[in-house]
Amino acid sequence: MSVATLPVDRVAADLASLRERTPLVHCMTNIVVTGFTANVLLAVGASPAMVVAVEEAPEFAAIAGGLLINVGTVTAASAEAMRAAARSAQAAGTPWVLDPVAAGALAYRTGVAAELLEHAPAVVRGNASEILSLAGTGAGGKGVDSQHGSDTAIEAAQTLAAKHGCVVAVSGVIDYVTDGATVLAVPGGDPMMTRVTGVGCALGAVMAAFAAVSESPLQAAAVASTVLAAAGERAAAATRGPGGFAVALLDELYTLDKAALEQR
Amino acid sequence: MSVATLPVDRVAADLASLRERTPLVHCMTNIVVTGFTANVLLAVGASPAMVVAVEEAPEFAAIAGGLLINVGTVTAASAEAMRAAARSAQAAGTPWVLDPVAAGALAYRTGVAAELLEHAPAVVRGNASEILSLAGTGAGGKGVDSQHGSDTAIEAAQTLAAKHGCVVAVSGVIDYVTDGATVLAVPGGDPMMTRVTGVGCALGAVMAAFAAVSESPLQAAAVASTVLAAAGERAAAATRGPGGFAVALLDELYTLDKAALEQR
Amino acid sequence: MSVATLPVDRVAADLASLRERTPLVHCMTNIVVTGFTANVLLAVGASPAMVVAVEEAPEFAAIAGGLLINVGTVTAASAEAMRAAARSAQAAGTPWVLDPVAAGALAYRTGVAAELLEHAPAVVRGNASEILSLAGTGAGGKGVDSQHGSDTAIEAAQTLAAKHGCVVAVSGVIDYVTDGATVLAVPGGDPMMTRVTGVGCALGAVMAAFAAVSESPLQAAAVASTVLAAAGERAAAATRGPGGFAVALLDELYTLDKAALEQR
Repeated sequence: MSVATLPVDRVAADLASLRERTPLVHCMTNIVVTGFTANVLLAVGASPAMVVAVEEAPEFAAIAGGLLINVGTVTAASAEAMRAAARSAQAAGTPWVLDPVAAGALAYRTGVAAELLEHAPAVVRGNASEILSLAGTGAGGKGVDSQHGSDTAIEAAQTLAAKHGCVVAVSGVIDYVTDGATVLAVPGGDPMMTRVTGVGCALGAVMAAFAAVSESPLQAAAVASTVLAAAGERAAAATRGPGGFAVALLDELYTLDKAALEQR
Repeated sequence: MSVATLPVDRVAADLASLRERTPLVHCMTNIVVTGFTANVLLAVGASPAMVVAVEEAPEFAAIAGGLLINVGTVTAASAEAMRAAARSAQAAGTPWVLDPVAAGALAYRTGVAAELLEHAPAVVRGNASEILSLAGTGAGGKGVDSQHGSDTAIEAAQTLAAKHGCVVAVSGVIDYVTDGATVLAVPGGDPMMTRVTGVGCALGAVMAAFAAVSESPLQAAAVASTVLAAAGERAAAATRGPGGFAVALLDELYTLDKAALEQR
Repeated sequence: MSVATLPVDRVAADLASLRERTPLVHCMTNIVVTGFTANVLLAVGASPAMVVAVEEAPEFAAIAGGLLINVGTVTAASAEAMRAAARSAQAAGTPWVLDPVAAGALAYRTGVAAELLEHAPAVVRGNASEILSLAGTGAGGKGVDSQHGSDTAIEAAQTLAAKHGCVVAVSGVIDYVTDGATVLAVPGGDPMMTRVTGVGCALGAVMAAFAAVSESPLQAAAVASTVLAAAGERAAAATRGPGGFAVALLDELYTLDKAALEQR
């Protein structure tokens, strides 16, 4: 297996494109990270909209530029709306991202994630434990934190991607993104990104945003990971704790440009 | 049509009155902005309380100083609680604010907003697309963002206000507030206010707070817009991105005084 | 009645233990404070997980290190999940914290809180009005804010603690923590802690975190109060308003050490 990296030029070009087109990103995410996710999308240049009712989500998924479905606090009621939205996105060709938070650790959501997976997500983003679980090769993690390094899930990610015809992104110290054939590595970021709730969840939303403007879901996922990693490094360098870090992360996403990307 | 502005003295007097009386503001708002809305209310000097269950919302709406109902993530269950609360507020004489987020863009919530409008809100606050839709003269916006300048909705706002005997506030680069006859213009603010989620939603909550202390809903809506615009200008001047801006906005709301209002 | 205080050494030792063991803290809390609560737990060194579905909460309550149940925005659906989680925690021996937000002020949640109290919480944390109400000796507060000083509820707290075999913590200018016999006083903190939404709610979550590592629920509650008070003092000293204060509070929780605790 060979692992490639994405040229900085493509990251910068997609970021410019995102800011110009401000894609509408439909988010159905967990109740912990709604506000932070919307702020991350606004900071990077997208237009977030949380539409969660079963009466509305399918209608909106069909017109959005991208959709995120995150099962972090899924209930029977929200699962129904998520399935309807996923079906609608599939039918309309809206690229959508599945974030199977804590799949493998809790039976109910593992089932919900498996069902959603049948509706052709463009990208599945999770930590190693979650991806190993979805691929049927792992025993699951401890709640939201992975028990495995991201490199241990590369093969499972490739298998899962090939089976479902989607891109799979494994988050960790190094992020890996694969469409089954190509594997892209995105190093960087900062440990502080794990001390603020919702950074991983927001990454899924940013992938949905780039999916609306990038040339492929593979590139969208890798660009999103790169942008967040770069902003995270810059934010960590300027702050002393998770409070200031979260604030600076938004500011860095807002000001990030080609020069900053090249400087890394 | 002549457009007036509110004297700074009245803004300062109402702000002082708010801080002295710390009105209890009942919020039924969308899941994206709950925390930020509560923090904006606390910063400006009000006492927020989110009471959302159908078992409790009517009871609380009757004793609160003001009520905000925002349909941003309305579901069938929360719509039922909102209708009950609106009825209770109407019966008890509690001034309440309707924020019809994305009315016109999505059928279900457009219906919910139209139903709520029958329960005599003191103020309806929205962007131009939302107000045009409620007035029956527009085709709706792109999710939460308006497709129209606020000035294009002044006439629709006056019509809507006259029909329902309420105040209508149209947010935009310039905010307009009308009771059907008088139109007040509130210029100012900063574009950064659109790069943080929930600033518009929080404005609705601040209107509900001032409705508890101002001499009229018209004045309450205009004072709230002025206070948020002034704090937004000061926050933008001191920060470089949306993360720092949101933090500074709360600090400016907390420290805003007559001198700062006169300085604008 | 004699009132003692906790030695700084124990606070520092428990804080070190928390950071080493990073206990999994299961939170079922109100929709206003989810994100802030998770960030407070991450900052202090715990591992938060919000698991709210009735299908999952009992399973998770049995494996978590501690559980928080906060009725701030309880509905019929979430009450069912909370009861199931409380039963599971009781059966599994998971220490859990009940935060009866606004009990006494609203009939429905007062009933829910009373039911939950039957499932042997390790700690009940509230303001004076809430504790007086649960103990059957008070008429309830104005929504989330207490109408009484914390010292007025010490006797009620002791009665409640003795009756239910739990620890009761009364928050206020001085926090009091009792197991019925011993009363510990935790002075300190800063008024700014009441100008940011969710500081009290987060304190309940921090108590659940320390309950997983401290030698007793009494010590856990007192250590949590001390840690938050110390961080609050340091944050207030460095900031000028509630926006910056909330950010600094997270940074201070992250960096707080024995030297800072001794300096107070």
